[in-house]
Amino acid sequence: MSRFVNAAIGQLGPIARHETRPQVVQRLSALMHQAHQMGCDLIVYPELALTTFFPRWYIEDPAELDAFYEREMPGPETQALFDLSRQLGIGFYIGYGELAFEEGRTRRYNTSIIVDKRGAIVGKYRKVHLPGHAEHEPWRAFQHLEKRYFEAGKDFPVFHAFGGVFGMAICNDRRWTETYREMGVQGVEMILIGYNTPVHNPPAPEHDDLSLFHNQLVMQAGAYQNGTWVVGVAKAGIEEGVDQIGGSCIVAPSGEIVASCTTKGDELALARCDLDLCNSFKETTFNFDLHRQPEAYSRLVARKGPGLMADGTPVPSPSARTKDPS
Amino acid sequence: MSRFVNAAIGQLGPIARHETRPQVVQRLSALMHQAHQMGCDLIVYPELALTTFFPRWYIEDPAELDAFYEREMPGPETQALFDLSRQLGIGFYIGYGELAFEEGRTRRYNTSIIVDKRGAIVGKYRKVHLPGHAEHEPWRAFQHLEKRYFEAGKDFPVFHAFGGVFGMAICNDRRWTETYREMGVQGVEMILIGYNTPVHNPPAPEHDDLSLFHNQLVMQAGAYQNGTWVVGVAKAGIEEGVDQIGGSCIVAPSGEIVASCTTKGDELALARCDLDLCNSFKETTFNFDLHRQPEAYSRLVARKGPGLMADGTPVPSPSARTKDPS
Repeated sequence: MSRFVNAAIGQLGPIARHETRPQVVQRLSALMHQAHQMGCDLIVYPELALTTFFPRWYIEDPAELDAFYEREMPGPETQALFDLSRQLGIGFYIGYGELAFEEGRTRRYNTSIIVDKRGAIVGKYRKVHLPGHAEHEPWRAFQHLEKRYFEAGKDFPVFHAFGGVFGMAICNDRRWTETYREMGVQGVEMILIGYNTPVHNPPAPEHDDLSLFHNQLVMQAGAYQNGTWVVGVAKAGIEEGVDQIGGSCIVAPSGEIVASCTTKGDELALARCDLDLCNSFKETTFNFDLHRQPEAYSRLVARKGPGLMADGTPVPSPSARTKDPS
Repeated sequence: MSRFVNAAIGQLGPIARHETRPQVVQRLSALMHQAHQMGCDLIVYPELALTTFFPRWYIEDPAELDAFYEREMPGPETQALFDLSRQLGIGFYIGYGELAFEEGRTRRYNTSIIVDKRGAIVGKYRKVHLPGHAEHEPWRAFQHLEKRYFEAGKDFPVFHAFGGVFGMAICNDRRWTETYREMGVQGVEMILIGYNTPVHNPPAPEHDDLSLFHNQLVMQAGAYQNGTWVVGVAKAGIEEGVDQIGGSCIVAPSGEIVASCTTKGDELALARCDLDLCNSFKETTFNFDLHRQPEAYSRLVARKGPGLMADGTPVPSPSARTKDPS
C-alpha cells in the first residue's frame, strides 16, 4: 500500500518593497506551472509570500502597515492563483499577513492556508511562535517586530487533504519541538512550513554561521521524531538589504533530506512522497500510544518552571534581557 | 564569564554474560584513570554499564533475572569505583539495573546516577521511556524486554553539580523531545545519556542503516533546542551476538558535535565544555519565558489524542500491532 503525494518546493527569491501583489502572483504562478509540468499535486510557498518581510521595519503609520495584510483570501489580487490552482488541478500552501475582524476589533495574524486541487481552502493556521520583539530597538541592524505586528495563534490543527493528514507551521514554529508533536499526536503525515530567516540574528550574531545547519536540524528531527514528512520553504536572498537563508528542503519521515534547493532565488525542487512511509515510524519507535509517558510531561504545559529543582534550590532563569530568535 | 566542565565519554565495548562486576569495574576504572590523566572533571559511562544488556533475553527464573540488578549503590562490588572517584577527584555518571523495595514490594528500574568529585551520589534518575515489549516474542532475532523487566520512572529531575545544572536520560529517552524539554525548562546545562542500541531493530529492519544518523540527530536537536550540552555514551560492539551501535559523542548547545568515539570498544573521548555557552541560546532563540506558548500545547499531556481533527473527522490511530523502538 502506498499513497504518493508529489510535493513541490516553491522557493522565492527576495520580494522588493515596491513589488505589487499582481507581480508576486505572477512569480507564484510561474512556479505553479513548473510544478504542474512535473506532475506535482501540491506546491508549497514561503511565509508572508505576497509581500516583502515587513516586520524588519518599525512602521508607525497604521495605513502603511495595513497595506501589508490581506483583508480576504482569496482577494481581488490573489484570485488568479486560486483560479490557476483549480485550472491545473494542483493544490498549494501559502503564507500571508491576515487582517481579521473578530470579537469587535481588528486582529492581525501571520497566517498560512492549504488549498486543495479544486482551488478551495481546506485549512488555515495562525502562527503560534512569534519571534522577535514588540518595541522599536534602533540598535539592531534591522527590526524583527513580529510580536508587535501579529497576535499569536492558539492551536496546531491538522486537516484531511491530498489523501493524507496535513498540518502547517510558519518559520520560527519549526524550531519548537511542541509544534511537530502537537500535530504528531493527531497523526500528521506531512507538515508544510514557510519561512523568512535572516542570516544575521542581531542579538546572537555568534549563531549566524550555523543558520542553515539549524534550519535543517530542526526539520529533520521534527520529521523523524513524529514519523512525518516535512516540507520547508524559504523566501531567500537579499531582500531590502537583509540577507535571508535559503535551504528549502523536503524531509522524509526517516529524517533524511530527499529534495533541496541550491539557489537563493525563485526555484522549484520536488519529491515523490509516500505518505505510507510514515507508518514505519508511527507503528514502531514512535508508537505514541505505547511509548509516550504524558504523566511525566507536566512541566511542558506549566506557564513557568516549577520553581524548585530536585535538590530544592530555585531554578535558574534566563536573564530578562530582550533578545530574540531569528 | 566561563564555567568549564571537562567531560569525558567512557564508551564501553561489549560486556559478555560471564563477566563479573569486579571485572567490569576494572574496565571502568581504567577509563577513569585515562580521563583523570587528561584533566577531566567527569566521565560518563553507558546505560546498564555493569552487566551485559540482559533485556535481550526472556528470563523465566527470578533468581537468574535478579542477578542483573544492584540492591545497593555503591555495593560491595561497586564501592571501588566510588573510592577511585574520590581519590582522583573525578565525578561520573553510570547506568545500572536497580532493585528497590518500595511501598511494600520489590521494584525494578533502569537507573542512572551522578556522582560528584568526592565520590558522593548527587542525583538519581529512573528511565521514563522504556522501549520494547513485555511478553516473549520468539519471532525476534533477540528480545527487547525492557517493558517486562523495569517499571517506568515518573520524572526528569535536574541537579546542581560540577558548577552547573545537570540532568540525565537513558537510551530510548533520547529519541523523545519531551525528555530534553522537561529538563530544559528547569535550566539544564548538561544532559548525560547512556545507551545500548542494537543496530538491528526487529520490528523495523528498514531503519537499521540509519541507526547512527538517528542517534546523532536526536541528541543534536535536543541540545540546540534547549541550549544545553549533551553527552551520549554507548555500550557498543557485538555483545552476546547482538551488534550495538557506537557513535558516542558530545554535543554543544549549538547542536555541533565537538567530540566523538570512532571504535566500538572501550574508548575515551573528551571535550572542554563551557557551560556558559548555553546562555547564548537560552537568552535568545530559546528564551522559553518569552517565546514558548504552553497554552497551545495541551495535546502534549493528554493521555490520548483529542479524538477529532480540525475538520471534525476522527484522528487516525496507528495500528495496534506490537512493534517496538530500538
